[in-house]
Amino acid sequence: MKKERLFTPGPVMVPDEALLEMARPMKHHRTAWYRDMHREVHELLQYLFQTSSTCLTFTGSGTSAMEAVIAGCCPAGHKALVVRNGKFAERWAKECVTFGIDHTNLDLEWGTGAKPADIVKAMDADAKIDTVIVVHSETSTTALSDVAGIAKVTRDRGALLLVDGITAVGAIPVKMDDWGVDAYVTGSQKALMLPPGLGFAAISPRAWERVDSGKTQTLYCDLKAYRKSLESFDAPYTPAVTLVRGLLYVLRGVKERGLESIWSETATLARATRAAAVAMGLRVYAKDTVDSVTAILLPDGFDEPKLRATMRDRHGFSVAGGQGELKGRIIRLSHMGYVDAFDTLGAIAALELALNELGYAVTIGAGITAAQQAFADSAA
Amino acid sequence: MKKERLFTPGPVMVPDEALLEMARPMKHHRTAWYRDMHREVHELLQYLFQTSSTCLTFTGSGTSAMEAVIAGCCPAGHKALVVRNGKFAERWAKECVTFGIDHTNLDLEWGTGAKPADIVKAMDADAKIDTVIVVHSETSTTALSDVAGIAKVTRDRGALLLVDGITAVGAIPVKMDDWGVDAYVTGSQKALMLPPGLGFAAISPRAWERVDSGKTQTLYCDLKAYRKSLESFDAPYTPAVTLVRGLLYVLRGVKERGLESIWSETATLARATRAAAVAMGLRVYAKDTVDSVTAILLPDGFDEPKLRATMRDRHGFSVAGGQGELKGRIIRLSHMGYVDAFDTLGAIAALELALNELGYAVTIGAGITAAQQAFADSAA
Repeated sequence: MKKERLFTPGPVMVPDEALLEMARPMKHHRTAWYRDMHREVHELLQYLFQTSSTCLTFTGSGTSAMEAVIAGCCPAGHKALVVRNGKFAERWAKECVTFGIDHTNLDLEWGTGAKPADIVKAMDADAKIDTVIVVHSETSTTALSDVAGIAKVTRDRGALLLVDGITAVGAIPVKMDDWGVDAYVTGSQKALMLPPGLGFAAISPRAWERVDSGKTQTLYCDLKAYRKSLESFDAPYTPAVTLVRGLLYVLRGVKERGLESIWSETATLARATRAAAVAMGLRVYAKDTVDSVTAILLPDGFDEPKLRATMRDRHGFSVAGGQGELKGRIIRLSHMGYVDAFDTLGAIAALELALNELGYAVTIGAGITAAQQAFADSAA
Repeated sequence: MKKERLFTPGPVMVPDEALLEMARPMKHHRTAWYRDMHREVHELLQYLFQTSSTCLTFTGSGTSAMEAVIAGCCPAGHKALVVRNGKFAERWAKECVTFGIDHTNLDLEWGTGAKPADIVKAMDADAKIDTVIVVHSETSTTALSDVAGIAKVTRDRGALLLVDGITAVGAIPVKMDDWGVDAYVTGSQKALMLPPGLGFAAISPRAWERVDSGKTQTLYCDLKAYRKSLESFDAPYTPAVTLVRGLLYVLRGVKERGLESIWSETATLARATRAAAVAMGLRVYAKDTVDSVTAILLPDGFDEPKLRATMRDRHGFSVAGGQGELKGRIIRLSHMGYVDAFDTLGAIAALELALNELGYAVTIGAGITAAQQAFADSAA
């Protein structure tokens, strides 16, 4: 009966109501019932991505949707710029290698996000670049890229902008059409607070022109096949019916709550967590911090696995560690989905206690008081 | 409160216990908990496929697993023979086209399955063929291919045999290692009686040699990436945690019930359904009938959509219609997963009633009596 709370940046906690919705008896997908559900889901996804373009739902992780976008939008004759500033950005460079896509990598320091000037410089240096691939919120480093600013650059230069929005969409401001982004991707287990198993891609008309000019490079992740099926709100291959059912439930909730509110509440949770870290004498890792997930840098030589184990096994809070070069150096806490100020106070309290138990001198109450102050300020 | 029963050949009815297992609170996958679960799942999948080889679990439909197998096992320099005897077989030919795989199609009459002699003839005619792609149970036509016999041929000739076992594995006899099949694929929503969203591929050591000799053609469906992660019972991309949780539950049940029993009970359901069709004056469509799903041919000009609508809306039984050239001509009833003699009697009763209601002269009780006789015979 011990309470467990998931603060990892995906999967995140799933609302009980969504779990029960997905536990309802199985229904078939080649039916008016499924098509009606898919129609409403599509409309709500358009709201989520803030676009009037096509929103595709893949049976797969976020990577399946990103593979679909990269393989579809970078046919032969085009050249991509891949901003590499973390583990997920590196995966998109790997996608380019896999599909033999002409590309160049722009390596940024981990913890920083891409800025318009970076893109301008890289494009000035290579006139062949007509596609830019950026991670909006790099989950591995918690760095935010300036997608709105970058989109201005890519629009001005007639290049396509493909964005990994996996821990961005539904958590921080994303305005696909206003900004002029050509493809945005997300997954079900982040801000959409569902179990993993669905990937989503919103594709602009400009991106579709590019897709239509190239040959199909994967059948399972083929954008054209998904678009064709979407005409009748169908799916080209058997969809994950139960997850789509949960999706309808959470998307209705997102619409009701309103994106602006969600963005603002998520930002408050992040601000509170950052303030708590500083109050506990720790540092926030990223230079360009994103609001969907916070990375806290641990003191040199601190036993990170033991800290996470203590938080999880003693206090019931699961947080993530670092990946790659950040392994053992940071812990990451999610602010996405079904999580509020009081859950977050709990996570900070658990961190305070665990740090204390492991011999790190933290003033008891300092972290939660700083967080509480942030909540009070935001309510003012 | 009207009862609904799913007799479509996937998705099928999901046991309540599995639905509730998947509705438990979300847990993270980069944990000992997930790895322990995946280790047991892998062992049980080996039992399911009757193999000591690697069994991979994909977040995707069965098509994702089949794409992984075809893209991985047919690198440049090899030539595939694709037996085309239905809609799913056609999809595998499309996979070959998508990945630029040198291949030749062997078109068989719909309703028939591939036999060893077909393969011998095709291979004799083209010495370059070193890979054979066959659908074990062609769901669209309910035709059974002789995989055991074909495997003898491919083994003798040193060719690889890749089998779509999507409505075969866990329903009808599948003995991967005994027969010498090199890759077998299935999906979660068929005999495994789960919601759709997982694909599975079992890969023989001979197939791995082929995979290792070629270049990676898709990252999301990359066999090598899945094999590498499996070494630590991990997953290369975020796995569908809740579905894997349900998977462990059903695989334990499959092991406990025993494959031999399941195969035999499934065959009895099919036999009963075929006997019922004949007793109602109808014909079984396929020449080479499979036991996982039965296609019943309707009288010429019969209003098939109305029949299915009556069965579903009035009686609560969902059955499938035909695809492609069989659209409007057949209905299909599943015998896979969480379905027994009494459910099946109900489906036949509903069919009897619906036929009667639509003016087709059927002797009331004829179908269910014939089915009941088959059940009595099998219990004798």
